[in-house]
Amino acid sequence: MPNPFDRLIEACHHDWRAYIEHEFVRRLGDGSLPEASFRHYLEQDYLFLGHFARAWALALYKSRDFDELRGAFDRLKTIVDLELGLHLDYCAQWGIDVATLDALPETRATLAYTRYVLDAGARGDLLELRVALAPCLVGYARIGKWLASRAETRLEGNPYAAWIEMYTDDAYLSAASEEEAWLDQALAEQPAKRIAELEVVFRDATRLEIDFWQMGLERHA
Amino acid sequence: MPNPFDRLIEACHHDWRAYIEHEFVRRLGDGSLPEASFRHYLEQDYLFLGHFARAWALALYKSRDFDELRGAFDRLKTIVDLELGLHLDYCAQWGIDVATLDALPETRATLAYTRYVLDAGARGDLLELRVALAPCLVGYARIGKWLASRAETRLEGNPYAAWIEMYTDDAYLSAASEEEAWLDQALAEQPAKRIAELEVVFRDATRLEIDFWQMGLERHA
Amino acid sequence: MPNPFDRLIEACHHDWRAYIEHEFVRRLGDGSLPEASFRHYLEQDYLFLGHFARAWALALYKSRDFDELRGAFDRLKTIVDLELGLHLDYCAQWGIDVATLDALPETRATLAYTRYVLDAGARGDLLELRVALAPCLVGYARIGKWLASRAETRLEGNPYAAWIEMYTDDAYLSAASEEEAWLDQALAEQPAKRIAELEVVFRDATRLEIDFWQMGLERHA
Amino acid sequence: MPNPFDRLIEACHHDWRAYIEHEFVRRLGDGSLPEASFRHYLEQDYLFLGHFARAWALALYKSRDFDELRGAFDRLKTIVDLELGLHLDYCAQWGIDVATLDALPETRATLAYTRYVLDAGARGDLLELRVALAPCLVGYARIGKWLASRAETRLEGNPYAAWIEMYTDDAYLSAASEEEAWLDQALAEQPAKRIAELEVVFRDATRLEIDFWQMGLERHA
Repeated sequence: MPNPFDRLIEACHHDWRAYIEHEFVRRLGDGSLPEASFRHYLEQDYLFLGHFARAWALALYKSRDFDELRGAFDRLKTIVDLELGLHLDYCAQWGIDVATLDALPETRATLAYTRYVLDAGARGDLLELRVALAPCLVGYARIGKWLASRAETRLEGNPYAAWIEMYTDDAYLSAASEEEAWLDQALAEQPAKRIAELEVVFRDATRLEIDFWQMGLERHA
Repeated sequence: MPNPFDRLIEACHHDWRAYIEHEFVRRLGDGSLPEASFRHYLEQDYLFLGHFARAWALALYKSRDFDELRGAFDRLKTIVDLELGLHLDYCAQWGIDVATLDALPETRATLAYTRYVLDAGARGDLLELRVALAPCLVGYARIGKWLASRAETRLEGNPYAAWIEMYTDDAYLSAASEEEAWLDQALAEQPAKRIAELEVVFRDATRLEIDFWQMGLERHA
Repeated sequence: MPNPFDRLIEACHHDWRAYIEHEFVRRLGDGSLPEASFRHYLEQDYLFLGHFARAWALALYKSRDFDELRGAFDRLKTIVDLELGLHLDYCAQWGIDVATLDALPETRATLAYTRYVLDAGARGDLLELRVALAPCLVGYARIGKWLASRAETRLEGNPYAAWIEMYTDDAYLSAASEEEAWLDQALAEQPAKRIAELEVVFRDATRLEIDFWQMGLERHA
Repeated sequence: MPNPFDRLIEACHHDWRAYIEHEFVRRLGDGSLPEASFRHYLEQDYLFLGHFARAWALALYKSRDFDELRGAFDRLKTIVDLELGLHLDYCAQWGIDVATLDALPETRATLAYTRYVLDAGARGDLLELRVALAPCLVGYARIGKWLASRAETRLEGNPYAAWIEMYTDDAYLSAASEEEAWLDQALAEQPAKRIAELEVVFRDATRLEIDFWQMGLERHA
């Protein structure tokens, strides 16, 4: 019998596979992704990180005790003190400076996914927010694993090797596992009606992640 | 076995009785409440109504479907289209005009209770918000019933008779019963840990209602 | 010198025209829009209305005094008590019943626009929320006027005549004018930095409205 | 001409002095405060810190750009990574362990002040939230300075010397100055109507701080 989190995935199996195994991901893995696509993705991912930080701040605001508060703070700290810096360094290596990043307009795909997550969290409770964030936090670890399992994936000579290594890194996988464990425990206590609602949230967030890859691939605004 | 809502009451039985049977309520019932106390209460209750409307608007904002949305809207409409007008008429009978009301500062008791309810709703989900509102909406019906059951309560010659009639009126009792039924159903589906959290919310909201009566009695700011 | 609201439009003039004069609108006006496109739009517009009601409830929650509160309530009441019913009747005429509507998944364009508006309102203040809502509330009146001014627009034999009449109706135009007047007054008091922020909100909301038309035209999910 | 922040103080001068020079503060300063009062205050201040962290998380959630986001994060980090630990250590020195703290019910004064600040932030914008937080963050620095200026204040043999030193410490004073500078700049841009609204928020938050001292003094719930 699958874990509660895996049951969320099963309930939108088709969308989940379309997200994890998206052409953007495949081509990242084999190195064939056009540079312009990767840059477009990198740029928007910076704007995404800002809203991602807002979402974990919302999780902290929604906390009921010091355990929940510290849990949300740890994620937030990882984003602001670590990931944001890594992202800026990484962008710099691709020749994209912070002034350029700060002046970028958000694309539709960025607007859609980030605001969906934030509204899910503002409307619902902490669990709903973390379910909406899971396609990103847990999903990227699944993407890392899937890429690592593919014969077509290569690191040598792949301009995107550093990206792949980031999401197959033990520290990242362990953060994602912790989140999955938290979700499994919280979901296990929910009545069926609530699970049905959370399945919609998880599915819609996954669909908007697909669009985020698609935006990168097509480089549209 | 008591209903889920009655179990919330039992979990803070002492506070609940201190609220329902407060000296302010007793003296409203027997007509011995000083006029200045009643006026002070009436004035602050107007400011309270504004935040009460904000709280039901928050409930609507938190809705997940059209049923929940219409349910919250019906309460909101009762407050804005009906109760606010009745309250203003009633204040006018006591010689308090709307310009006076709009210029009043909020007392501590008003600030405390209203903001507690609003934060419970913003932090939690729709159920948590409605639990925080229940000492008011359902509690006033219980107060009406308790007053109606007391030998000491009298309507004739009681300057507060209209107030008592408002909360022993069938329309009010029926709205309160509906809300109680909604709460019973929603609470019945919750795991034990969640019930424990909601008991704290219900108890704290009840304690802040006690302070609201006390403020009236002591006429402090 | 243009009014403050018209300056928001000028700051994203190209997007605004792409929205007001969208092919979907043109073909509504001359009756050449495929039925399937119109149905798709009507269905999603129902889901949109639910979030639109949530947004005006958020405006009420954000109110600081009884004037603001009643202003937001009046809009909310128009949506829930009037527009929702009209929309359901109109859908019924097109053979779309309420059970079908309630079971629909939201498309990307619906998710994106509605959640953007709701987040703008939750993050910012009442003015920011109303700026994010303006492309819809005020924009539809501008669309009505634009259609009325075109030689190509015809009502006779046009299956969409009732839709056009709804947004060229005096009651609607007057509600839109009131909102524009409120915005003009509120915007006039803002410092330049704030205006620049609100221009981004207005532009992004307009871009997401374009996508909503496009979704109808292409009938995608 | 006073700075914009000092004008907020002047607009509620009487309340501000009642807060800064409260009997609780005087007796902290001269060492005559009953131990039970200080413990009661310390305990509730721990619960306060949790909501204070929620409020700065709300500030981060309300941020519009990476500068605002990092600014709010820095405050939040100081609270969660530094002050919370210091507070727990300090409580331990007074024989109050963390299990006791986590099991405490909130007093009325704690509920009132914390929820008022959180609602001000949720209803309004970032500036309104920071104005509501200012009596605490900036006020404690003013209290430190006031105590340092009094002949009656003594550190030697004063059981509360460590508390006084915390709020006369350069690091604390510098954080408070930074916040004041931020407020001065933001307030300088606001129209008169907005300033009038913020004066009410600042005054009410100050009044609720007075109650927090009073709660300590009287040791009530």
